[in-house]
Amino acid sequence: MPDLSHFLSEEAKRRKPSPLKEAFVHFTNPKICSLGGGLPLPDLFPYDKVSAKALAAPFNEGIDKDILEAKDTIDIEVYKKDVEEFDDINLSISLQYGQSHGNVLLREYIKEHTRRVHHVGYDDWDVVLTIGNTYGLDATVRTFVNPGEPVLVEEFSFSSALECMRANGAIPVGVKMDLDGIIPEVLETQLANWVGPKPKYLYTIPTGQNPTGSTLSPERRQAIYKIAQKYDFLIVEDEPYYYLQMPVYEKGAKHEQHLDRDGLIKSLAPSFLDYDVDGRVVRLDSFSKVLAPGTRIGWIVANKMFLERYLRLLESTCQVPSGFSQSLVYGLLTRWGQDGYLDWLIKLREFYTKKRDVTCDAIYRELPAGKYELVPPTSGMFFWLKIDARRFKDYEKYNADAKAIEMKLYELGVENGVFLVPGHWFFAPDNTDPPQPRAVEESEDDKNAMFFRGTFASVPDDKLVLAIQRWAKTMNEYLK
Amino acid sequence: MPDLSHFLSEEAKRRKPSPLKEAFVHFTNPKICSLGGGLPLPDLFPYDKVSAKALAAPFNEGIDKDILEAKDTIDIEVYKKDVEEFDDINLSISLQYGQSHGNVLLREYIKEHTRRVHHVGYDDWDVVLTIGNTYGLDATVRTFVNPGEPVLVEEFSFSSALECMRANGAIPVGVKMDLDGIIPEVLETQLANWVGPKPKYLYTIPTGQNPTGSTLSPERRQAIYKIAQKYDFLIVEDEPYYYLQMPVYEKGAKHEQHLDRDGLIKSLAPSFLDYDVDGRVVRLDSFSKVLAPGTRIGWIVANKMFLERYLRLLESTCQVPSGFSQSLVYGLLTRWGQDGYLDWLIKLREFYTKKRDVTCDAIYRELPAGKYELVPPTSGMFFWLKIDARRFKDYEKYNADAKAIEMKLYELGVENGVFLVPGHWFFAPDNTDPPQPRAVEESEDDKNAMFFRGTFASVPDDKLVLAIQRWAKTMNEYLK
Repeated sequence: MPDLSHFLSEEAKRRKPSPLKEAFVHFTNPKICSLGGGLPLPDLFPYDKVSAKALAAPFNEGIDKDILEAKDTIDIEVYKKDVEEFDDINLSISLQYGQSHGNVLLREYIKEHTRRVHHVGYDDWDVVLTIGNTYGLDATVRTFVNPGEPVLVEEFSFSSALECMRANGAIPVGVKMDLDGIIPEVLETQLANWVGPKPKYLYTIPTGQNPTGSTLSPERRQAIYKIAQKYDFLIVEDEPYYYLQMPVYEKGAKHEQHLDRDGLIKSLAPSFLDYDVDGRVVRLDSFSKVLAPGTRIGWIVANKMFLERYLRLLESTCQVPSGFSQSLVYGLLTRWGQDGYLDWLIKLREFYTKKRDVTCDAIYRELPAGKYELVPPTSGMFFWLKIDARRFKDYEKYNADAKAIEMKLYELGVENGVFLVPGHWFFAPDNTDPPQPRAVEESEDDKNAMFFRGTFASVPDDKLVLAIQRWAKTMNEYLK
Repeated sequence: MPDLSHFLSEEAKRRKPSPLKEAFVHFTNPKICSLGGGLPLPDLFPYDKVSAKALAAPFNEGIDKDILEAKDTIDIEVYKKDVEEFDDINLSISLQYGQSHGNVLLREYIKEHTRRVHHVGYDDWDVVLTIGNTYGLDATVRTFVNPGEPVLVEEFSFSSALECMRANGAIPVGVKMDLDGIIPEVLETQLANWVGPKPKYLYTIPTGQNPTGSTLSPERRQAIYKIAQKYDFLIVEDEPYYYLQMPVYEKGAKHEQHLDRDGLIKSLAPSFLDYDVDGRVVRLDSFSKVLAPGTRIGWIVANKMFLERYLRLLESTCQVPSGFSQSLVYGLLTRWGQDGYLDWLIKLREFYTKKRDVTCDAIYRELPAGKYELVPPTSGMFFWLKIDARRFKDYEKYNADAKAIEMKLYELGVENGVFLVPGHWFFAPDNTDPPQPRAVEESEDDKNAMFFRGTFASVPDDKLVLAIQRWAKTMNEYLK
């Protein structure tokens, strides 16, 4: 593995281990009476037992079944001390201060899962738990980027990620996309002509990208990794939607899905980790979209040198994920087992496929043909409508300003009772100083491209269809 | 209230609200079909019910009673949807993405509690939830301090707080203490002679200070607040030990404690908030020491302008505290009620008083009289032994280097089977460039002062006494 220490930020280099934390070894030595750590006695924790009811694998009744009425359920019971058959994260451990990489049982579970799904291209990788990917993004900027340094991002990207970079003084620089994501050739041209300090990393959401819903093909991933090697930058892949992958949409087709566990694993897009022989990929994963956002548990997969620096940051910021979360999430996962968790993910895939199909069926049925472009998403929660601003009836009145027209059409949608998000809210302008040379000239089509993001995740099917009908009405009224 | 915007860091000023978050108002408008937010359907959260067993107020069986064997218990049951008599934070809410200031029910509970205990000197204050005070410290540095700027700290301070400041590029500058904490007159001299950029704030742990166990008297708090006004800096009070306040130690006395709720409130030291007419106090509070560290819920009390900046930071880092934590902590507190929570705190006070008494009794009984100084703590988890390095038998061999001797005595203690923390691990040197002029000349006594921190919180009484006996043996063997 090449030496990667030049990627660390000044802040990351400054972080020192605490002598007190290093002396923890004495705290647990039974020969030593330690009055060292300011830990409250677990006897005083006011909870002796937490429990939860959940569906049992393999989820034959569906994953959206009301658990209180389901037949096949499991009871998760976690006690303060050891009393149960399951190897749980007891409350005396999870509600106490703990090591910042997260409880060893949950961490091992996640490592085992990672080994089952990915094939990291080198051995010296590891996992640390976080409190979610949004936090992981902040930690990543702080670990690698000094104020004033650029970060490569998809030209439309997760707005909180962009905001987090800017707040930390980093400069997000957009990489041109088409409807299938980053275009490797354009990325290479951009780097070949780069002006000023080089980007430390590319921040990408490769699967079910937010906001565009696009998914990078294996070929593009491999090509991008090679560019990262050639121009020596890291790849930070933010993969909350990774398990929301679906078969390709076919108009009107009902997908007969009977994937088994191996079939699921084979169906998944490769991680950048699979190409990573240098340790230059940092993967951010999360339970937010597969279990629930409120678990506030995510994790980072990366090389051990980087993770040690993340750990120093975690120690003096988050400390550990919530103990209730660790006990109840591990309580669930250990009862499901690795296989049961894959069964859950298979059903999740089926569920999202249906929602995606309902959405795309409605779009093709309701929206005026020829007046929009759509690549039916194969992952994630989002669809991304492209509309030419020149179709807007009052195009001239808005001085041919596509952004202003996009905003106007969004507002007209809201008046008609439908909310889609204007694409330019996600736009990452290239604002380095001096500016980067353009990798591709902007065409008239580019200048007039408007985008709208919708999600098919958060509402029931009838509302989905109603929303699309209202958007169709808006398009019919205001586009020519 | 004076204009306080000059306290904000460049980072805090850069943070912008997200247009998407500002459009949230449309998401909840029933007339609008929103395909805006990428929120998973709560139907898919794999938990429909979580429950916990806890002791019932007013805790007549003691607060360390095994709940599974106790008579007076309560059952906390929180469902995904409304089904129960209690106004709980349902899982469909807590396990979803939420507003970063924390769930409204828990936040209102904490505000009501704050109003009951403190008398903030102005009206325009508020509360936001955090994931604990360690995170609060990091957020505070980022919100107020630019790299290279100094922060005033107690000359011995919480090592993670110091590390967090240094990592962020802030320069902690120690303020001279005696065994009762910061000396206001010395602080004033220090500021009157200040060289270079002025400190943005004083970071202090006023009650049961870590590591010294000292508690600032009301007179010192008031004097320090006046100095903050005169020299225009903020006061950041980190108060995790606030409810571990005890009556003054009297050798051999058994405290007959029968405080009622009003008595408890009257017994508490004032918060800096009580003197705060300008909005220049930021209070960091936490459930870590009164319920359990693993709840990972803390909160900040401050003026609304500052809190709005914290909120922008929270949105792009932590998002929200764990949903399980919010549901189960609020589930407990709402069933206890505001009164029951005060009853819990009364019992906690009694519990810690007993442990403090056991510790001080043992120290006075076992340690060689005249060879150490101790101010019996009136708050917190820590005691702080002061020992003159000139008493060390091999004083000359160590070139009269008090730090080296402190480290040696620590190691000799470990060899004898007792772990106390060497004081200099908590020391904050004054390392501005150019250096600050000394506020007081260092005497020979100062140069030879060694300190050791012990905790009486984390071990049962028999181990506490054994540890002190072993420390007595160490002192007897190596001190003259």
